[in-house]
Amino acid sequence: MNQTYHPPAPPWEVEQWFNTDQAPTLESLRGKVIVLEAFQMLCPGCVMHGLPQAARVRHTFPPSKVAVIGLHTVFEHHDAMTPVSLRAFLHEYRIAFPVGVDMPGSRDGLPRTMLAYGMQGTPTLILIDAQGRLRQHHFGQVADLALGAEIAELLYEQP
Amino acid sequence: MNQTYHPPAPPWEVEQWFNTDQAPTLESLRGKVIVLEAFQMLCPGCVMHGLPQAARVRHTFPPSKVAVIGLHTVFEHHDAMTPVSLRAFLHEYRIAFPVGVDMPGSRDGLPRTMLAYGMQGTPTLILIDAQGRLRQHHFGQVADLALGAEIAELLYEQP
Amino acid sequence: MNQTYHPPAPPWEVEQWFNTDQAPTLESLRGKVIVLEAFQMLCPGCVMHGLPQAARVRHTFPPSKVAVIGLHTVFEHHDAMTPVSLRAFLHEYRIAFPVGVDMPGSRDGLPRTMLAYGMQGTPTLILIDAQGRLRQHHFGQVADLALGAEIAELLYEQP
Amino acid sequence: MNQTYHPPAPPWEVEQWFNTDQAPTLESLRGKVIVLEAFQMLCPGCVMHGLPQAARVRHTFPPSKVAVIGLHTVFEHHDAMTPVSLRAFLHEYRIAFPVGVDMPGSRDGLPRTMLAYGMQGTPTLILIDAQGRLRQHHFGQVADLALGAEIAELLYEQP
Repeated sequence: MNQTYHPPAPPWEVEQWFNTDQAPTLESLRGKVIVLEAFQMLCPGCVMHGLPQAARVRHTFPPSKVAVIGLHTVFEHHDAMTPVSLRAFLHEYRIAFPVGVDMPGSRDGLPRTMLAYGMQGTPTLILIDAQGRLRQHHFGQVADLALGAEIAELLYEQP
Repeated sequence: MNQTYHPPAPPWEVEQWFNTDQAPTLESLRGKVIVLEAFQMLCPGCVMHGLPQAARVRHTFPPSKVAVIGLHTVFEHHDAMTPVSLRAFLHEYRIAFPVGVDMPGSRDGLPRTMLAYGMQGTPTLILIDAQGRLRQHHFGQVADLALGAEIAELLYEQP
Repeated sequence: MNQTYHPPAPPWEVEQWFNTDQAPTLESLRGKVIVLEAFQMLCPGCVMHGLPQAARVRHTFPPSKVAVIGLHTVFEHHDAMTPVSLRAFLHEYRIAFPVGVDMPGSRDGLPRTMLAYGMQGTPTLILIDAQGRLRQHHFGQVADLALGAEIAELLYEQP
Repeated sequence: MNQTYHPPAPPWEVEQWFNTDQAPTLESLRGKVIVLEAFQMLCPGCVMHGLPQAARVRHTFPPSKVAVIGLHTVFEHHDAMTPVSLRAFLHEYRIAFPVGVDMPGSRDGLPRTMLAYGMQGTPTLILIDAQGRLRQHHFGQVADLALGAEIAELLYEQP
């Protein structure tokens, strides 16, 4: 019988959270579809496309069913995109969903969660289903129409 | 027990079809989700938003599962939007999906299918499920993210 | 001595005017810079770019110094773009500047003014200086920044 | 006799220049029209509108006649917008014209050139004529059509 295996999403290794009092985890969000938006604050494609799209997702789907989480995955210009700069960026761009700072790693300057998810760059949008499994991985732009359908597929599938 | 009733979509009364050899009907499309885009060729909101969105739907979803159908529902400026003008419009705007000309009616100049569906104006986007039932009715603009989710909901629901 | 010759703009041959009680002519507009926007109502580039730009020009420059004139130069789909259809189009798209219907010609279906100006298609934007001379001829899109500069050059040059 | 007085532009007090080997000054640019784009790297209106417009100006007008100069006028989030962050920002956003870092001041955190020019915030676009005089001061957005005309007016006026 033909069946696809969906691996569990790797845990998030985050050194600091913004826009939330309690650190969100895969476990605490179990039961919701998660839209994970990995970005860098000085990445034009993230600022122009990825982050506005994540904000639209947040306003389109009910927060009881879909969680939007940002992940600041700095893999270049580390000195230019510190948490101090990120805080101002989130304020100026009115980004209101929780954003975690990916834990700096050792290899090639790639932060740890970025490495664990095999991300190739930013923006990357990851969809995680209600059971905490990886379902979609988009590097670069994905159209709203396709993304809306992908999120809904995860919402309406029977467990 | 709580249950929503979805009425059957009224049949299409069309005097002429473009972009197709065989007149599509609700019956011939049974088993597919139908996106019905009602428009007027001189309606700016249709030209700028509704018709480009319908074209994006057609390129995003497989034609074996989702059918995109245009309906020219002229309810004003009848002399300005004849089938002769429509043919040139469809050619110039590269609209490739089937488009039917709604049958002129008698009351208030409203064409018959427009009246049967209770449309308030153009653009109107109607979603019909695989069983031929009315599921969504949008007058004016609907965002791609929400529309993608609505189409996917109809695709992934269990009959 | 190096000097450029600017030929006089050919007269407009128009069978019908919209949005004006008095037929504008090159003579009646002498002393103003003229922005002549040649378009077809079913030309997507005209609807999306040319006509909105002409409307922006009209709102940016004082009407005492710059006149915006539309010219409906139908050279294809003649039956689809009659004056009856044009009237509805101008109404629906809220085009408020004077628009003339270029006089149908005999050769190749090209209307007469289009032929006299050597236009290659639509949209075409022509700039005529305060002395009635041809100064710019753009086929296709011209950026707002460049167009603003060209209009101003004609406004501020010393006769 | 009616005559407008155009005050001389205040000198630029800059602590560091990017994208240029030689520090540009009002004197060194005498004879050119100067478009001075004051911005902050974390100001959305600057990133979305002001800086792309400055880049368009640079590609529309000949560099022998029009100089485009950026000025990083940080008046908030000082720790988040250091020259280290600015360098990465200019690289990622492909900003190629000279950009000076406005000298930090003492009063209210306003940098010195920003204060001398009486700027109210960012983005601010200043036009300086070929004689080094202040001619336009725009806080917020200015449309391309109007800006193109203003630059051209300075180019074509007789000294």
